[in-house]
Amino acid sequence: MEEKLQKLKELMAEVADLGHANALLGWDQQVYMPPGGAEERGYMTGTIGKIMHEKFTSDEMGLLLDDLKKYLPELDPDGETYRIISVTSRDYDKATCVPSSFITEQAQVVSIAQQAWVEARSNSDFSIFRPHLEKVAELSQRYVSFFPPAAHPYDTLFDSYEPGMKTADVKVIFDDLRLQQVELIRAIGQRPQVDDSFLHLAYDEKSMWDFSVEVATAFGYDWKRGRQDPTAHPFCQSIGPDDVRITSRWVPELPFALLFGTMHETGHALYEQGVGHAWSRTALEGGASFGIHESQSRMWENLVGRSHAFWEYFYPRLQDRFKTQLGNVGLDQFYRAINKVEPSFIRVEADEATYNLHIMLRLELEIAMLEGSIAIKDLPEIWNTKMQEYLGVVPPNDAKGVLQDIHWSGGMLGYFSTYALGNLISAQLWEKFKSINPDLDDQIRRGDFSALLSWLRVKIHQYGRKYEPQELVQRVTKSKIDPEPYVRYLKTKYGEIYGL
Amino acid sequence: MEEKLQKLKELMAEVADLGHANALLGWDQQVYMPPGGAEERGYMTGTIGKIMHEKFTSDEMGLLLDDLKKYLPELDPDGETYRIISVTSRDYDKATCVPSSFITEQAQVVSIAQQAWVEARSNSDFSIFRPHLEKVAELSQRYVSFFPPAAHPYDTLFDSYEPGMKTADVKVIFDDLRLQQVELIRAIGQRPQVDDSFLHLAYDEKSMWDFSVEVATAFGYDWKRGRQDPTAHPFCQSIGPDDVRITSRWVPELPFALLFGTMHETGHALYEQGVGHAWSRTALEGGASFGIHESQSRMWENLVGRSHAFWEYFYPRLQDRFKTQLGNVGLDQFYRAINKVEPSFIRVEADEATYNLHIMLRLELEIAMLEGSIAIKDLPEIWNTKMQEYLGVVPPNDAKGVLQDIHWSGGMLGYFSTYALGNLISAQLWEKFKSINPDLDDQIRRGDFSALLSWLRVKIHQYGRKYEPQELVQRVTKSKIDPEPYVRYLKTKYGEIYGL
Repeated sequence: MEEKLQKLKELMAEVADLGHANALLGWDQQVYMPPGGAEERGYMTGTIGKIMHEKFTSDEMGLLLDDLKKYLPELDPDGETYRIISVTSRDYDKATCVPSSFITEQAQVVSIAQQAWVEARSNSDFSIFRPHLEKVAELSQRYVSFFPPAAHPYDTLFDSYEPGMKTADVKVIFDDLRLQQVELIRAIGQRPQVDDSFLHLAYDEKSMWDFSVEVATAFGYDWKRGRQDPTAHPFCQSIGPDDVRITSRWVPELPFALLFGTMHETGHALYEQGVGHAWSRTALEGGASFGIHESQSRMWENLVGRSHAFWEYFYPRLQDRFKTQLGNVGLDQFYRAINKVEPSFIRVEADEATYNLHIMLRLELEIAMLEGSIAIKDLPEIWNTKMQEYLGVVPPNDAKGVLQDIHWSGGMLGYFSTYALGNLISAQLWEKFKSINPDLDDQIRRGDFSALLSWLRVKIHQYGRKYEPQELVQRVTKSKIDPEPYVRYLKTKYGEIYGL
Repeated sequence: MEEKLQKLKELMAEVADLGHANALLGWDQQVYMPPGGAEERGYMTGTIGKIMHEKFTSDEMGLLLDDLKKYLPELDPDGETYRIISVTSRDYDKATCVPSSFITEQAQVVSIAQQAWVEARSNSDFSIFRPHLEKVAELSQRYVSFFPPAAHPYDTLFDSYEPGMKTADVKVIFDDLRLQQVELIRAIGQRPQVDDSFLHLAYDEKSMWDFSVEVATAFGYDWKRGRQDPTAHPFCQSIGPDDVRITSRWVPELPFALLFGTMHETGHALYEQGVGHAWSRTALEGGASFGIHESQSRMWENLVGRSHAFWEYFYPRLQDRFKTQLGNVGLDQFYRAINKVEPSFIRVEADEATYNLHIMLRLELEIAMLEGSIAIKDLPEIWNTKMQEYLGVVPPNDAKGVLQDIHWSGGMLGYFSTYALGNLISAQLWEKFKSINPDLDDQIRRGDFSALLSWLRVKIHQYGRKYEPQELVQRVTKSKIDPEPYVRYLKTKYGEIYGL
């Protein structure tokens, strides 16, 4: 077995190296590539992706995995060897289900759909995007058809982002959550609104950038294994655990977006930097799922970065940098402003109390698109109806409505829920950690995040993709993914801020 | 044939894409990679290099080329198809001569040798590097042994950098050149030295950087297909003709090194940006040879960038940026200062009149190392003796002598001559262009480089690797590589500056 396992690791190491190369190519494309480089960049990533796929789905790999799987019954299911074999097999089975002709076709459809989406959004004209979204929905249906039947066809899509999670589970979680979040928002709507006008004054980019570096450093981001660059859209990119980069965006009208965006991406980066080196260049490197990843980014951005304790330490430092804008603004006033709740049209600008509702709306539409139970042409109307129902606002046009997100044009049906799950998991982990470390707020008040990070490293980060998300949450919290901690968190926080 | 040619192009396109990926990985490694990323970067480039080699030396490629070569007698030797087949075959034959076990061994030896060289240089202790250089020399001898016997064993090494050039040719060229350059330097040494103290004052980095951008833009560097970043060692990296990047170095003690370095790298970049798109993703993309490449960088750095005409246009602009340092320095005074001739120890800091002598010394030592006619242990002494003979100066230690260059530790025997050949070719091309465009100086005086660039594009750049270097120079100048134009250039320029 040892010899075969070694061979498996060698093959996977090459696949991982190619994946890292494509990760860097993608990072460079968004950060520093001159515009002329786009065409050749497409060829490069295409060729590397093709070779990765060929290598990973090779007969050699299939035979090796078949042989190695025979040893599973004798192995400790929690051991490294068992998991390397089982996770690689899971990935292999998925990768070999889909014919490569389909992957090529999908890449072409998506490439054109994204261009159409850009045009549709800039003209706020859904009809430009409609035929492409119809194709994307049809492709998603065909994609599902390549796999063994699941309890719900959406399960197959969802599984690409949250391995092992079922549509039925998410529906139960979201149904419970929706009612409570809608009720909370209505209650907040009855109360006097907080003033956040001082957050929208002119701020100096360099000072804000430097402050974001100060915060990321305090969180524990390792700059020897990372870097931060400016981009149009902030993201975190791992090129292996020792080269994990974040990017940040400066929008003069939203000066604090750079800061909270950096906290968010630092959360992702802390996860990737903490994945055990034993998993490097294996199928187990990286995060357990998109939802678990988002639990880390949202925790550092929101549970830490928008907490009162955090600003007790950092607000004087922020004021020092921005005396003109914040010199006369008190800590409590600032704290309330950065936590202002206001139903709005755009998901990525939504506050903690309204964010999940944006997601639930999208999940319902995605399921209906996949089932074919709604016509794509009716999407804008359904979108607006649901916005009214959940958030009490209706977008003035489709650019601020159904056309706002890039995901569908990229063929990524099944993705959105992971954002909301991340919020829920972040609160579950937070409650758990506070139960065993009741001193957390005091630590944060001292600018000390080491206990929190160490705990996340031990309980979450080190495992990489060893556990499926439900399994991982269960191990840490003794419960599956559960919306109640997040609801408790929201009610406590906003009850206090809005005097409910 | 069409079908096979198409297949060849498909295979080569993938090899080229992988090459471009490794080029970007290399660029990033030197420019932005955090230190932690080094280990995984080594794996990535190693894996991609291995796959490139496997793909390029595959049986499929060999059979295709065998089949296609049969058509050569029927094809126009100057046509695209003929050259794609012949150049790819030439590369294939070279790549398949060397066993992959040797490549692995060489990579290991070189990796250790480079570390030893860094230590040896920083301690100025040749004995640390000596055993590694012995291994490198032995590896070079073995490398040569894999190829069919050549007129001189060094031909095989040299051919990797200057396809088709022979050691005997270079010896003849250099023998002629050495006597004339030594004589010129001695004559200059008898004359009063020029004052260049104002070049070594404190200059502002940002202003110098901006000025270097102004010059690169004027030369014709296309920023939509390129970019400029700061690095420890300046270089130019092509990731295909539409993404050609340059880097520049700021050394406060040598403020003008950034400017002339940028001109140099821009020269390389103009070449790469000008290679015909017909050659993209084939064996013919890139420059014809290291020498031809260097002819472009040296032309823009020296024949243009250190010319009187150039500064008639740019000096007032430079003075505007640096009033304190240059406000009272006249144009002629400045011109003489940037052309100061002074024998020195370090090749990369050498002026135009002394540079080639540094190269000739190295070539002689390389040939002797390969022939085994000198003992590695005696290198420092021989180095110093030759320095005295050619340049009239002896380095105070080996760090400033035999240990100064990285090339040997990287296994790159055969490389150095291309620097001197580049100087010679640059003057040959320059003479040729002036003979048909006598207005060149006036154009440069107006800051207009368009006629020069257009001519280089048509005569050199567009061809990529279609022609071997001698063939290319012959086509353009009706002469093989010839030292006389460079000697004439030096004598005229320095005769005027030093009043000889």
